[in-house]
Amino acid sequence: MKKQIAILGSTGSIGTQTLDVVRANPDRFEVYAISANRSVDKLIEQAREFHPEVVCIADESLYDQLQSALEDMPCKVWAGAAAIADMVTMPSIDIVVAAMVGYAGLCPTMAAIRAGKTIALANKETMVVAGEIICDLARQYHTPILPVDSEHSAIFQSLVGEDCNAIDKILLTASGGPFRTFSLEQMQTVTAAQALKHPNWDMGAKITIDSASMMNKGFEVIEAKWLFGVNYDQIEVLVHPQSIVHSAVQFKDGAIKAQLGAPDMRLPIQYALTFPERLPSDFPRADLLTLKNLTFEKPDLERFPNLRLAYEAIARGGNMPCVLNAANEVANLAFREGKCGFLEMSEIIADTMAKTTYIQKPTYEDYVASDKEARQIANLQIG
Amino acid sequence: MKKQIAILGSTGSIGTQTLDVVRANPDRFEVYAISANRSVDKLIEQAREFHPEVVCIADESLYDQLQSALEDMPCKVWAGAAAIADMVTMPSIDIVVAAMVGYAGLCPTMAAIRAGKTIALANKETMVVAGEIICDLARQYHTPILPVDSEHSAIFQSLVGEDCNAIDKILLTASGGPFRTFSLEQMQTVTAAQALKHPNWDMGAKITIDSASMMNKGFEVIEAKWLFGVNYDQIEVLVHPQSIVHSAVQFKDGAIKAQLGAPDMRLPIQYALTFPERLPSDFPRADLLTLKNLTFEKPDLERFPNLRLAYEAIARGGNMPCVLNAANEVANLAFREGKCGFLEMSEIIADTMAKTTYIQKPTYEDYVASDKEARQIANLQIG
Repeated sequence: MKKQIAILGSTGSIGTQTLDVVRANPDRFEVYAISANRSVDKLIEQAREFHPEVVCIADESLYDQLQSALEDMPCKVWAGAAAIADMVTMPSIDIVVAAMVGYAGLCPTMAAIRAGKTIALANKETMVVAGEIICDLARQYHTPILPVDSEHSAIFQSLVGEDCNAIDKILLTASGGPFRTFSLEQMQTVTAAQALKHPNWDMGAKITIDSASMMNKGFEVIEAKWLFGVNYDQIEVLVHPQSIVHSAVQFKDGAIKAQLGAPDMRLPIQYALTFPERLPSDFPRADLLTLKNLTFEKPDLERFPNLRLAYEAIARGGNMPCVLNAANEVANLAFREGKCGFLEMSEIIADTMAKTTYIQKPTYEDYVASDKEARQIANLQIG
Repeated sequence: MKKQIAILGSTGSIGTQTLDVVRANPDRFEVYAISANRSVDKLIEQAREFHPEVVCIADESLYDQLQSALEDMPCKVWAGAAAIADMVTMPSIDIVVAAMVGYAGLCPTMAAIRAGKTIALANKETMVVAGEIICDLARQYHTPILPVDSEHSAIFQSLVGEDCNAIDKILLTASGGPFRTFSLEQMQTVTAAQALKHPNWDMGAKITIDSASMMNKGFEVIEAKWLFGVNYDQIEVLVHPQSIVHSAVQFKDGAIKAQLGAPDMRLPIQYALTFPERLPSDFPRADLLTLKNLTFEKPDLERFPNLRLAYEAIARGGNMPCVLNAANEVANLAFREGKCGFLEMSEIIADTMAKTTYIQKPTYEDYVASDKEARQIANLQIG
């Protein structure tokens, strides 16, 4: 039986690499449904190659264009956020790859969990915003959540066959991004174009900026807390510029287990799709011999205050990680649009965290309201 | 229920460290039986501290001394190789730590497997000499064999929860020993005293010399082949002077999993005793931050021909690994006694492998005969 896959955000970096994995394993996987935010041309192309049952575009204004382009095909063509949330619950679907960008991933991921679909989670904002609700839901509906992020996949792989209660700490590695060796002064003047040049990973624009500012790593700390049931102070970030050790776990007996590999997202994607199996692949291998050496250093919280803010948000708990995420989405976009400086992003976020109403035990509706409030506050600070 | 432990070779390096683990976890473990080859004083001391039911000395000439020293204690005092093989089959014993040195470990390990005792295997010669028979026996008697060697423990830990059929290759790390950077010329004149100074591990004399000559690594290749059911050409030796990555496994999907830690044998010993659990410990931790960098290089088979000979022995199969081990035991002792040079050890072993009768499908009796024949041939070459 082929696994039927739904890909949310099929035209993005994770989405297209998921399709690479499907393309390489036609006997294992079938694309049942795909969705994109606005990349309608790419979505049409993907629909013509993979023949999904459902194709969905989030931006409803693009529906007509999509519909007429796929008129000769038997697939259903849908549009809008509600349609995406419906799509993931379709009975034939086995796995939902949640690879949408940002807060938009939350709602369809919750719908997929409720429908009992295995979640291959690439959208880390989902866990950042509402980790507690997501974890409770997953327990309630016995839905497995498999991480797609290379770091969380590495941790997950290191924990296979182990008892999570034996975790001493999680060693979350970070490439350090393009500004790892920049001075604070240099960082004040960096441009979006500079930040978009990531040394090791080829990713979407939003996450590449988050990576350069280390907010991405802060989100990963929060995500790891929820995925693996540890306290935030059991998660240590290690800057590892070679991006070969994708992350590690230290157990209570002192043993460290790590997962290593070449920086290639297709590996964690494939693992999430095939778990607990491992399929042969022709992905590039990490060659420890040619690599010569692996180094590890502490992150500099002076130059990368976003990481400190993320620890602060998860330490305060409640709706604070949601506020962190909302403020960051606003600041990240403002920086990409040249409306604020690189380090100003952190100021906007810190200020938003200070000003947004704190809610200790938020409901889903509280998260929606906090997200909105935080975005408004963050936007006020942008010129 | 406390686990009842028998330790073969309790006065050696692994034996005393096993007792350290027992001492630190008195609610988990009880020492039921201990044996030593000739270190009678240390054995008496251990008997007085741990109150085992049975104390056994391999060298029968030391029986009277042992017996009279323990006269006031209720424990049984035995002597001789046959007594050790009997001892391990006693019904109360749960785990047998096989930490004898060399070929002598084979017979009692086989007895323990037949008695269905969990084997914590530190004696790698057992697997080198008769891996096929040992594995067949373990399957037949459903006896788990848990590796104690840091490298094999690391591989075992990396494989927990994984399918052995998904192994692409095993990356067996080696410290490179004290002569890693020596020239071939320098190696011709090294002394036993120099070879006994291992940079990272504190071990017994025989294994320290094997480590300096890389025969230890050759044995580990053979042991890994049998323990993990892979072909010898799926095992790659990587020289890793920091001894932090204790070994790794590359899977067919390209993922590498590794176990890292400070060089401390108590960790793999404890893991073998507690598997699948992990107990909290105060063993020193590996700190990736203070360590700064990890390096990997290819072993030099010109300067370390023993590693080449080990691959040759396992490639030829049959009794050749047994011959390799016997010749090495003779050469290793001769070197320690100043009767041959460091590089001459390899010549003796190669010559013995060439001259000893090859048996493709040896029985246990064939192994005993091959061992004897090889020792005679090897001894003839020593002045």
